[in-house]
Amino acid sequence: MQPKPLLTQLVESLMCLPGVGRKSAQRMTYYLLDKDREGGLNLSQTLDESMLNIGNCRSCRDYTENDLCSLCMNPKRDNSLICVVESPADITAIESTATFSGHYFVLMGNLSPLDGIGPDEIGLTQLANKIKQQGCDEVIVATSATVEGEATAHFIKSMLININPNIMISRLAQGVPIGGELEYLDSSTLSLSLANRQSI
Amino acid sequence: MQPKPLLTQLVESLMCLPGVGRKSAQRMTYYLLDKDREGGLNLSQTLDESMLNIGNCRSCRDYTENDLCSLCMNPKRDNSLICVVESPADITAIESTATFSGHYFVLMGNLSPLDGIGPDEIGLTQLANKIKQQGCDEVIVATSATVEGEATAHFIKSMLININPNIMISRLAQGVPIGGELEYLDSSTLSLSLANRQSI
Repeated sequence: MQPKPLLTQLVESLMCLPGVGRKSAQRMTYYLLDKDREGGLNLSQTLDESMLNIGNCRSCRDYTENDLCSLCMNPKRDNSLICVVESPADITAIESTATFSGHYFVLMGNLSPLDGIGPDEIGLTQLANKIKQQGCDEVIVATSATVEGEATAHFIKSMLININPNIMISRLAQGVPIGGELEYLDSSTLSLSLANRQSI
Repeated sequence: MQPKPLLTQLVESLMCLPGVGRKSAQRMTYYLLDKDREGGLNLSQTLDESMLNIGNCRSCRDYTENDLCSLCMNPKRDNSLICVVESPADITAIESTATFSGHYFVLMGNLSPLDGIGPDEIGLTQLANKIKQQGCDEVIVATSATVEGEATAHFIKSMLININPNIMISRLAQGVPIGGELEYLDSSTLSLSLANRQSI
């Protein structure tokens, strides 16, 4: 059997990208070959470097090609505040608000004992050490508002209180999103918003 | 100024793909780093090989990494029939019907004298030579049903008749697509379908 044509191989390799099926992959292949071979070569090189060199920051576990990520090395960030998130994508989301100036810690998942993901797998020992060394005052546990996220948040809370009983531990506010119409909001969120109503 | 983090570089490189904006590129980046570094490395290598090695088939101008593409080398294809298309993607589309057994010729565009794209740029001299050598009986001019496609088709027709007055030249049938509802069809196509109605 002769090997597959390179073009077919490229189409199939592109299908490893999320949200890219055969049709999109074909479109991308023809686009790169027709109009942007330079962009394709550049992508190839950056992909190669990234897949081989990007690891986790020694301090916050965010993705970086260095020992420490740029946020951990930034002396202007507030050492007294740590935001615990599930994934590096959450850091990008929070940074885009430009309202948080503390440090982060990335769990890379949630506690899931049935899948063998315990406190060590999500780096909680490392988080405990970081908090002891850094001497921070407040930890925002910004895990998702899902069952797994809530369970992880509770576990982190009890762990942190053992380390430092005076530390402030918070969760993100929950309620009606900006621009949200009550008519289309799910009933759980709506009843939570009613219970946690704020005086104006 | 320090260089951009590798992760940002990867996001920006992925944005060279058509239909991929910053959000999708971020999603792809995190997906590859989290779950499929091997797929990313494989994509990098295939991209590199493809961008550097894929050229045009000597006979039909389709994309291939060899001198002749697999269709031109296939002895089972019918030499007496040539289908002229605008782009390699059109070959994939026609091949997917599994009803055409002839050869192809790819123009890689349409005539556009104002943009400096004349008969030589779309390989018409090469097409003329191919037809003389191959001694084919019928040429299907499957350019798009656009103004440029029609103009190119007419030019090709007059060129081919000069070479061989007995050659059969055809265009793809035009009319109501399968599953198409008359209510939503544009009036030009509908009037064409009426004019070219067929007895049943």
